[in-house]
Amino acid sequence: MKRTICVVLAFAFTSFCIMAQDKKAFTIDDLMPGGKTYSSMQPKGKSFAWWGDKLVEMTDKKATDLFTNDNINGILESHIKQTYPASEYDTRKRHSTLPGLIKSKASFPYADEPLVLVYNQNIAALVNWEKSEVDAFYTLDDDSDVEDMAFAAKTRLVAISNDHNIKVVAPDDKVIFETTDGTIDNVYGESVHRNEFGIDGGLFWSPSGLQLAFYRMDQSMVSTYPQVRIDGNDDSRCAVLDPDKYPMAGETSHKVYVGVLNTETKAVTYLETGDPTDRYFTNIQWSPDDKYIYMIELNRDQNHAQLVRYNAADGKKDAVLFDETDDKYTEPMMPIQFLPWDSKKFVYASRKDGWLQFYLYDTTGRQIRQLTKGEFEVMDFVGFNPSKKTLIYTSNEADIIGKDTYSVDMNGRRTLLDNGEGWHKVKLAPSGREFVDEYSSISVARQQTLRSTEKTGDKGIKANLYIADEPWKDYDVPEIKLGTIKAADGVTDLYYRLILPTGFDPAKKYPTVVYVYGGPHAHNIDASRNYGARPWDIWMAQQGYVMFCLDNRGSEHRGKAFEQVTFRQLGVEEMKDQLKGVDFLKSLPYVDANRIGVHGWSYGGFMTTSLMTTYPDVFKVGVAGGPVIDWKYYEVMYGERYMDTPQSNPEGYEKTSLLNKAGNLKGRLLVIYGGNDPTCVPQHTLSFMRACINADTYPDLFTYPGDGHNMTGTDRVHLHNKITQYFNDFLR
Amino acid sequence: MKRTICVVLAFAFTSFCIMAQDKKAFTIDDLMPGGKTYSSMQPKGKSFAWWGDKLVEMTDKKATDLFTNDNINGILESHIKQTYPASEYDTRKRHSTLPGLIKSKASFPYADEPLVLVYNQNIAALVNWEKSEVDAFYTLDDDSDVEDMAFAAKTRLVAISNDHNIKVVAPDDKVIFETTDGTIDNVYGESVHRNEFGIDGGLFWSPSGLQLAFYRMDQSMVSTYPQVRIDGNDDSRCAVLDPDKYPMAGETSHKVYVGVLNTETKAVTYLETGDPTDRYFTNIQWSPDDKYIYMIELNRDQNHAQLVRYNAADGKKDAVLFDETDDKYTEPMMPIQFLPWDSKKFVYASRKDGWLQFYLYDTTGRQIRQLTKGEFEVMDFVGFNPSKKTLIYTSNEADIIGKDTYSVDMNGRRTLLDNGEGWHKVKLAPSGREFVDEYSSISVARQQTLRSTEKTGDKGIKANLYIADEPWKDYDVPEIKLGTIKAADGVTDLYYRLILPTGFDPAKKYPTVVYVYGGPHAHNIDASRNYGARPWDIWMAQQGYVMFCLDNRGSEHRGKAFEQVTFRQLGVEEMKDQLKGVDFLKSLPYVDANRIGVHGWSYGGFMTTSLMTTYPDVFKVGVAGGPVIDWKYYEVMYGERYMDTPQSNPEGYEKTSLLNKAGNLKGRLLVIYGGNDPTCVPQHTLSFMRACINADTYPDLFTYPGDGHNMTGTDRVHLHNKITQYFNDFLR
Repeated sequence: MKRTICVVLAFAFTSFCIMAQDKKAFTIDDLMPGGKTYSSMQPKGKSFAWWGDKLVEMTDKKATDLFTNDNINGILESHIKQTYPASEYDTRKRHSTLPGLIKSKASFPYADEPLVLVYNQNIAALVNWEKSEVDAFYTLDDDSDVEDMAFAAKTRLVAISNDHNIKVVAPDDKVIFETTDGTIDNVYGESVHRNEFGIDGGLFWSPSGLQLAFYRMDQSMVSTYPQVRIDGNDDSRCAVLDPDKYPMAGETSHKVYVGVLNTETKAVTYLETGDPTDRYFTNIQWSPDDKYIYMIELNRDQNHAQLVRYNAADGKKDAVLFDETDDKYTEPMMPIQFLPWDSKKFVYASRKDGWLQFYLYDTTGRQIRQLTKGEFEVMDFVGFNPSKKTLIYTSNEADIIGKDTYSVDMNGRRTLLDNGEGWHKVKLAPSGREFVDEYSSISVARQQTLRSTEKTGDKGIKANLYIADEPWKDYDVPEIKLGTIKAADGVTDLYYRLILPTGFDPAKKYPTVVYVYGGPHAHNIDASRNYGARPWDIWMAQQGYVMFCLDNRGSEHRGKAFEQVTFRQLGVEEMKDQLKGVDFLKSLPYVDANRIGVHGWSYGGFMTTSLMTTYPDVFKVGVAGGPVIDWKYYEVMYGERYMDTPQSNPEGYEKTSLLNKAGNLKGRLLVIYGGNDPTCVPQHTLSFMRACINADTYPDLFTYPGDGHNMTGTDRVHLHNKITQYFNDFLR
Repeated sequence: MKRTICVVLAFAFTSFCIMAQDKKAFTIDDLMPGGKTYSSMQPKGKSFAWWGDKLVEMTDKKATDLFTNDNINGILESHIKQTYPASEYDTRKRHSTLPGLIKSKASFPYADEPLVLVYNQNIAALVNWEKSEVDAFYTLDDDSDVEDMAFAAKTRLVAISNDHNIKVVAPDDKVIFETTDGTIDNVYGESVHRNEFGIDGGLFWSPSGLQLAFYRMDQSMVSTYPQVRIDGNDDSRCAVLDPDKYPMAGETSHKVYVGVLNTETKAVTYLETGDPTDRYFTNIQWSPDDKYIYMIELNRDQNHAQLVRYNAADGKKDAVLFDETDDKYTEPMMPIQFLPWDSKKFVYASRKDGWLQFYLYDTTGRQIRQLTKGEFEVMDFVGFNPSKKTLIYTSNEADIIGKDTYSVDMNGRRTLLDNGEGWHKVKLAPSGREFVDEYSSISVARQQTLRSTEKTGDKGIKANLYIADEPWKDYDVPEIKLGTIKAADGVTDLYYRLILPTGFDPAKKYPTVVYVYGGPHAHNIDASRNYGARPWDIWMAQQGYVMFCLDNRGSEHRGKAFEQVTFRQLGVEEMKDQLKGVDFLKSLPYVDANRIGVHGWSYGGFMTTSLMTTYPDVFKVGVAGGPVIDWKYYEVMYGERYMDTPQSNPEGYEKTSLLNKAGNLKGRLLVIYGGNDPTCVPQHTLSFMRACINADTYPDLFTYPGDGHNMTGTDRVHLHNKITQYFNDFLR
């Protein structure tokens, strides 16, 4: 894949050269999610859902072919009023949450029935919009938010987890099964292993809808992080404890079990995995015939994975299909996927050849062949087209910073299904024969197209659904450039995005801010609209800053070697690459080398603090958000994958700990954390403050009480005003 | 009392006019407690203790007539090694703490025996320095710090409280009594009522040393404030909960009981006070004959006090001697004191005539007469001189901003015992006939004199013990001025201290910082060295700031009406006075009215935040430390005295809450809090941050993790560098 360096965002360039005076300036509310005018400044689009092979357009207000929101809400409200006595109805809080039901949370589980499944945190329902009737109604929870919910289409059973227990509700709103011994120490039906390994829930219906696999997690042996709610609760004006289990690297971790509920006998059987100590049970998948559960099991060191099959009926281990090992780590992220036309074969995703690729296996554990291959990575498993016996997926094969939709047949023949440009999202029809393709690129704000999975490129277009106007066309958009530089290894190309100040004058010297993330599983520069520029980048450019961002080695979609260079020393190689970025910046005549700042959040907060304390003469001002300060305070799963344990890699932990570098701080560094951050717990930031105080250095601090790892809504607007203010105070 | 306005600090003025160039500049370490050179920059002095009528000079290193530290420590160490097996000795950590034993913690309980009582947090001992023997040895605690310790000279018993239990130890190191059911909810032998009402301990030996009165506090019904230790503990790298009971204004408070231990029978009897709900039991005092316990009892509204007598043997209530009421509040701060020559009479301190004065009562509760009277306040009860039948005390009679030592006879004749200038501290001999007088004033750095309590002024001088050199004589000390302005009531004189920038040029305009406390029980301006100027004031003057401080109405030593003007609306009148101070500043040609800042801590943090949000156009920059933000988050005892409860005074709480004023913030405001502040809990500052975020205003924040309400040691130096940096960033 070749790309011209420094592609210029066409309309922005025009706006600068010809008519900058006539263009509008952005407000922070225009640019920032949570801002008052943010939504109207985004490229417009439509919401679609599949009802069998019919494509349904979801709307907020106006009628469609199928139903209106008001309709569905009205039907539901009427049903609730008839079914429940008024007193109960009031206390169940259903009414207040009804308006939020439709649109994003609606789906059409039955191709041949006019039933829509809607749900919020309190109820779920199947509504027949033709008969204006509620076909099935489920009370999820009266008081608190559910953790996870799963609907079994065939049996119309709903399983939920909340307050650490599981409940299974039948269509008549009767509870047919529930656990009662769930506690913070003994958790049923929730995501485990802190959402690593692709895990995002704890409830798994079998294909028949008659059996429910679920996670149970014993975390009684895990440290409790004492989070504090300063707004108290109903019983207390005084701040209250809000404890959270948090296993830190090298410390005792939780134990996970997998249970199987037979909804007919109500019996629960646990898989006979053996001692779950220091093991990860990931990527649960049912066999198509309901008989087996497949699971990828990983050792605590994360360098040895096994695909294991269990008998669902008695929990016995049936087979270990194969092993996968790696000298650094292996990270299973996708469950196996059975071929719809051959239940003895499945697809498995692995990075074993250096790039994440699909492999075809049979149920004896034999690898039939590698399906995809090349210096690219598969990104999403989308589904199958059984009629053509193809697998539909996304990858960055056409453009290493892009994302396109492909099919591959079982002989490994790959077909590009979209235009091969920009960044695509795909919504596949149940039949697998059509999909809604939505994409943006440097020249396309947002475009939605109905495409076939059976033809390549433009030949597959079945309908143009929506083409958005560029919402910023009347605004003075700064020039956004894309390019590559060599990494610190001298070989690897790294992508950067460079944004010039609004009203750029090449004769001037500008303050420059490096935005950094730098960690695994993420990237900042891609082929989407504005090359993925962040709203705050645009805001800062308008304030007169050069904005720079570089995806260093260690970031995503560039293969295993690119990522694993950081192993056992997070931050070290990443910083070397960022310094190459700074060298490049210093080569630009309009960058003021004495006014270079850096900002990042989470891993980027770690990078920012690392850069400020490792290269104190390079960066004058930094703003680090929700940073990791010492990996010994980070969680077992993510932390040990990259760093091993403090016991087995003491020098790595020593070398990367910012507690040891607090005394190096020279520039101005603002550290910001969410007051109740459950991911990078406040102990990180507060320990760094303590280390700086002890070392007689002077960071600045801010916090968003009550917020978690990221700020949302108006807090996000406030946050970015705060960050901007800091650079304006000390860098401008 | 009249005083010339704008007295000039003589040597400072000279230094400026004649030889400023030759003078040295201060470092922050010179000025700040905790700084490396701080001690050497303080006026020197000697440490004295009374051994009967002999005055002992305590030294660190060199030998005195009596003993050397090395001697005592050597004797103790040898004793411990002989008495305790080596294994036990090691774990008891006694050795490491030995060097801290002597000097400040040494006393001489027996006039006729060569015994010194020394103690630290782990052990106490009576050491015979003539025989080089340990006469009595007490294990206080092996692991943790003791909360309170009391020594009974007659029986040589030691009582301690720690881990919420009481232990009584005999001279042979045997435990003769202990409680075992103490918990955070059920606390024995510690200070109660959060140290208000003059309470500073929970153990009270009877005169014979055979009975021990003690507090027990049931706080099971009190809210738990979830303090968090980010340094974990021995068992956990993860942050740990460090819960603290904290009753907030208007909420359920604790219940206090007073127990009496008979050390001979080991029986414990509780005083029959009736239901302790919403009552304060304060100022415990034994009768000289060991038979009775006197206590001042106060209702929760704090407007009705009673002096009550109990029979110590059976706990029965014997008599209510008298009542005292006030339409706002009455605040008993001193236990009654029996006359050594007449056990049927005692002295009681009350503000009932508008000023804190002593009254003579008999044990029937009859007031015999008012002993002191005038527009001044008694400050300390020092003791008695039985041979002359006089009471020795301090007051501000000679100078309303001074403190001098007086005697008063039982007919109310007062005699000044010192020179009537400056600020005096007094250490009275057991006989009451002599005292060590230590003082400083605007012209005297530190002077120590041995004086008689039987002669007035200079006639009483028996020896000049020490006259300190002015340690700053070679330094470029800024000019420090004293003066008065009228309060916002137009009548009351308020004292201010004004410090000109080092190298003052009257033609320039200077940034100016108002330092404020403003709350009850404190003052900032007095007649001591430099008029009580704070080290940071001097530092800031050297940085080029005018420094201003005004003791507004509501502060101490000016009588009841002066203080109570703030009742039910803390901050309101205080701010009006501070604005009068600003008016005065603006009248000075060298003050830049556009660059006025404000700084204060605790109540002063409340004042600073109040001023920044109530008068946003007056103050450009503020630094508020450990602030109260809303009195509803402050404790019951102090808070309700001045504010009543949120239930009974909702408009007062509304009006003074800074959560309601967060949206007014315009200038730059840095709020700093101790991460584990048990007094103004972090909820104050964090709630203010949340309110500002919600109101879209932009305060700054800093914290000292692990610190309490105040920073000490090197943290205090760091803190003041941080505060200075903030003013330098935004006000200079």
